[in-house]
Amino acid sequence: MVETQHRIGEKSGDDSEAATMSDIAGSTPGMVWDAWGVPAGRKPLSDQLRGLVTQVFGVSGDPVTRRDEGDVPLRESALTSTLRDGLAEVVGADNVSTDHFDRLRHAGGKSTPDLLRRQRAATQQAPDAVVFPADHDEVLAVLAHCAQHSIAVVPFGGGTSVVGGVDPLRGGFAAVITLDLRRLDAFVSIDPVSATATLGAGLSGPGAEELLREQGFSLGHFPQSFEFASIGGFAATRSSGQASAGYGRFDSMVQRLRVATPQGALDLGRGPASAAGPDLRALFVGSEGAFGVLTEVTVRVHPVPDYVVYQAWSFPDFSTGAAAMRAVVQEGAQPTVFRLSDEAETGLNLARAGDIGGQTVSGCLAITTFEGSAAHVAARSAEAGALLAANGGTSLGEAPAKEWEHGRFSAPYMRDALLDLGVLCETLETATTWANLANLKSKVTAALNGSLRDQGAQPLVMCHISHTYRSGASLYFTVVAKQLDDPITQWYTAKKAAGDVMIAEGATITHHHAVGTDHRDWLPEEVGDLGVRVLRAVKAELDPTGIMNPEKLVS
Amino acid sequence: MVETQHRIGEKSGDDSEAATMSDIAGSTPGMVWDAWGVPAGRKPLSDQLRGLVTQVFGVSGDPVTRRDEGDVPLRESALTSTLRDGLAEVVGADNVSTDHFDRLRHAGGKSTPDLLRRQRAATQQAPDAVVFPADHDEVLAVLAHCAQHSIAVVPFGGGTSVVGGVDPLRGGFAAVITLDLRRLDAFVSIDPVSATATLGAGLSGPGAEELLREQGFSLGHFPQSFEFASIGGFAATRSSGQASAGYGRFDSMVQRLRVATPQGALDLGRGPASAAGPDLRALFVGSEGAFGVLTEVTVRVHPVPDYVVYQAWSFPDFSTGAAAMRAVVQEGAQPTVFRLSDEAETGLNLARAGDIGGQTVSGCLAITTFEGSAAHVAARSAEAGALLAANGGTSLGEAPAKEWEHGRFSAPYMRDALLDLGVLCETLETATTWANLANLKSKVTAALNGSLRDQGAQPLVMCHISHTYRSGASLYFTVVAKQLDDPITQWYTAKKAAGDVMIAEGATITHHHAVGTDHRDWLPEEVGDLGVRVLRAVKAELDPTGIMNPEKLVS
Repeated sequence: MVETQHRIGEKSGDDSEAATMSDIAGSTPGMVWDAWGVPAGRKPLSDQLRGLVTQVFGVSGDPVTRRDEGDVPLRESALTSTLRDGLAEVVGADNVSTDHFDRLRHAGGKSTPDLLRRQRAATQQAPDAVVFPADHDEVLAVLAHCAQHSIAVVPFGGGTSVVGGVDPLRGGFAAVITLDLRRLDAFVSIDPVSATATLGAGLSGPGAEELLREQGFSLGHFPQSFEFASIGGFAATRSSGQASAGYGRFDSMVQRLRVATPQGALDLGRGPASAAGPDLRALFVGSEGAFGVLTEVTVRVHPVPDYVVYQAWSFPDFSTGAAAMRAVVQEGAQPTVFRLSDEAETGLNLARAGDIGGQTVSGCLAITTFEGSAAHVAARSAEAGALLAANGGTSLGEAPAKEWEHGRFSAPYMRDALLDLGVLCETLETATTWANLANLKSKVTAALNGSLRDQGAQPLVMCHISHTYRSGASLYFTVVAKQLDDPITQWYTAKKAAGDVMIAEGATITHHHAVGTDHRDWLPEEVGDLGVRVLRAVKAELDPTGIMNPEKLVS
Repeated sequence: MVETQHRIGEKSGDDSEAATMSDIAGSTPGMVWDAWGVPAGRKPLSDQLRGLVTQVFGVSGDPVTRRDEGDVPLRESALTSTLRDGLAEVVGADNVSTDHFDRLRHAGGKSTPDLLRRQRAATQQAPDAVVFPADHDEVLAVLAHCAQHSIAVVPFGGGTSVVGGVDPLRGGFAAVITLDLRRLDAFVSIDPVSATATLGAGLSGPGAEELLREQGFSLGHFPQSFEFASIGGFAATRSSGQASAGYGRFDSMVQRLRVATPQGALDLGRGPASAAGPDLRALFVGSEGAFGVLTEVTVRVHPVPDYVVYQAWSFPDFSTGAAAMRAVVQEGAQPTVFRLSDEAETGLNLARAGDIGGQTVSGCLAITTFEGSAAHVAARSAEAGALLAANGGTSLGEAPAKEWEHGRFSAPYMRDALLDLGVLCETLETATTWANLANLKSKVTAALNGSLRDQGAQPLVMCHISHTYRSGASLYFTVVAKQLDDPITQWYTAKKAAGDVMIAEGATITHHHAVGTDHRDWLPEEVGDLGVRVLRAVKAELDPTGIMNPEKLVS
């Protein structure tokens, strides 16, 4: 097979590369309060898809009426003027807000239950104030002040959590503030020789990428939340992006961390690798604001690659496709992006935004991209392509892969469109070994189907692999069903069934969504009671009064 | 350039592959008490090299008289018969030893100061007893017993520590036992699909490798200590092996850990990756026995590769060679083994055991090997070779790389031969970013030269890179000088000067040797006082009476 190497930066015929680059340019937009993203990103469903959805799921299709942001009642701010003045002394009065809109836009994250609560709850929960510190030292001072005055603190990056990670919970304290880190947006430094960059925790994904590209570098971290999430949030939640096969999980990108805690600051990570005791960076990557606030992250970056090759593949079924992926990854020939949709997802064209609901496609679609120098891309795509072909894959050329890239940040907008039609749509994810993958997929699917059917709403459950490792892979499930009377309870009931199966089958409760409140009760099963005690001991040392993000990660 | 692909398992012309395989076969040998390794491994220096050494360093060359193992006085065992009987109840009387030879062979590790103390100290330190538990449950029971009766516990794998990690320190307790884990040698299970294996912590490097190869797999972890060190020790010290470019540090190989602590057991790691809070495995990888005992490790393995290609290269100088390595690693084209010796090391042929001290070679020698399928090896060696050639490298063919592989475990034996001649020989290591590498190398070299020269013994300082990362690399220094009257103080004085420079220049105090006692005082500078407090908080939770490996890692 002859593939086309696309020179990055050159305009390609179908504009897909240009579109991707314009998607990620610009400053950090704040998201709307009751849905994903920004109004400009919303894409109404096609008439065809809307017709299909209303028919399949038995919903009326009448769109939900959205509430006016200014009219939504909030719980009253519990922050006394004395406490407020104290915070204002630290960050300046302009940077302590009890404004209705600021509070409402920090009411929580973007899980489906979060969005359903925005539509349904009469009074919305909200932080008692939103505080905007300017830098690391101000964060330290705010934490010291809050520890002294028993105010709970919720660190907030892009607000994209789907596990309750930024819920403004008071946790027994008299008041809770949300610490919005958007002003920590410095491009602190770049080391082009070592290919590392030190970034403020509040930089958004596009903000960081834009600043890096001006220097000829890229981070290469593109999770679904990319357009709104922050550098600090990527680290605090152990994020993993769509190019993780090529550039690694965010965990592996972190070289150095600066952390502000109620007990002082930490500066962790000296050089690329060390044996100087346990890697303490790993305690803060994934700490979800429960120990302190990540204020600065030094990340591994890479020169903007010269070329990219796109290749799509079809496999007769999911297990054949997964075995082919395994062959590639275990040989060490993995692409930059490496995904496989199951039969249900492939059939609905969910990986190809332009074609969703179009003509049904059989088999399983796999997407690969290869980035690097001309020689690197040629060698890698040839090696991986030969292995995929030898393991049952049929080349589909580059078009489906480019279509996937073009639409890759649009799924959460489609969720909004479905939710508005009265359809429940949510995702959950896990990871396990290759040997356990088919078993786990089958049992999680059965648990979701069983729970939702028993509740009276036969779902459609789709799945893909989007993160691969030598020993295993992630499984990402998308679930669509009719909303019943109480869709929040409906979803949590189904999620409980699925999560219990993950734990029972030896898998992790979350591959890249983090713990927050939604996965907290599974954590003792994930790491054991003694593991939870270790986390509590670390928290007690760094946050002895327990103000940091109460009720998240550990209770 | 046309390179030869050697089919692994076939006998090659010069027997180097066969020699390597026979080196690693067999059961775990115990090391002699006062030197590295086993008597059969000792290699006397050639007359030529011996002449060179005595001349260059001004030593007499008269070999040290070795002491008879049976005649060496030990400190008296402080274990009362009651305490001994209690331990015997847990593991059986046969597995609690106060035998002179058992105690002496657990007197400590194998650093140069350790070996000099064996020669010089009249009375040797030794544990009050050596306990040989059979399995995880017995380890748990021993720890509970020792916590109850205030007995310090030193976990012991292969005893290869070069940082004081297995010194039998009582740490204020009435007695100390060494917990020798050699009976935890089970090949618990293998998952050939996911390419993982669960190994008892007491399995030696060769023992594990042999059992894996029977199943068609290899761990690919070959540190200098490989022949004697244990699986648990690799994890407890964050070991990194000679094939780390291809197969990763031991940190990255660990999938799952079973840990016994005085407060109970932990079982950490579910699947290949997770976002379920901080990665607690990283707290125990590198914990050096201070929190508990690693009893079982599930590691990533790989099928025994079909082919290997060897390529050696010459660079005009170290900075050109390092820049070429960086180009290869940052392109993602790294070999399986990737090393670069500086001018001093290259000149002495230190990387080529057969030729040490032979005809002087100019420039800097780099070694590469590539393992995998025929296609993988061909693609990778072509890509890396082109980059090395484009960055100033001249191919030397395969012979120097094969010679390096053949002699790669012999360096510690040569150290013994030098120590016996009255020459001081020791190594130290660090890591830093590519941008800081030349500066660090220059300053550490100057610190070693300055300190030893000021003490009256002009040294020879050599250096190589043996572990590479996208953002930086390790530096491994070998120091040779005349032993002065107090060579232990002589070395620690030089090491202090070098370590202070590493910290001042932003590097790590150890890339793969761990902390033990020797690097402990630098740890507050490496991770900060608050970082040390976090480690102490974890220890206090898991080991509230402080019996676990006292005075190691943190005091």
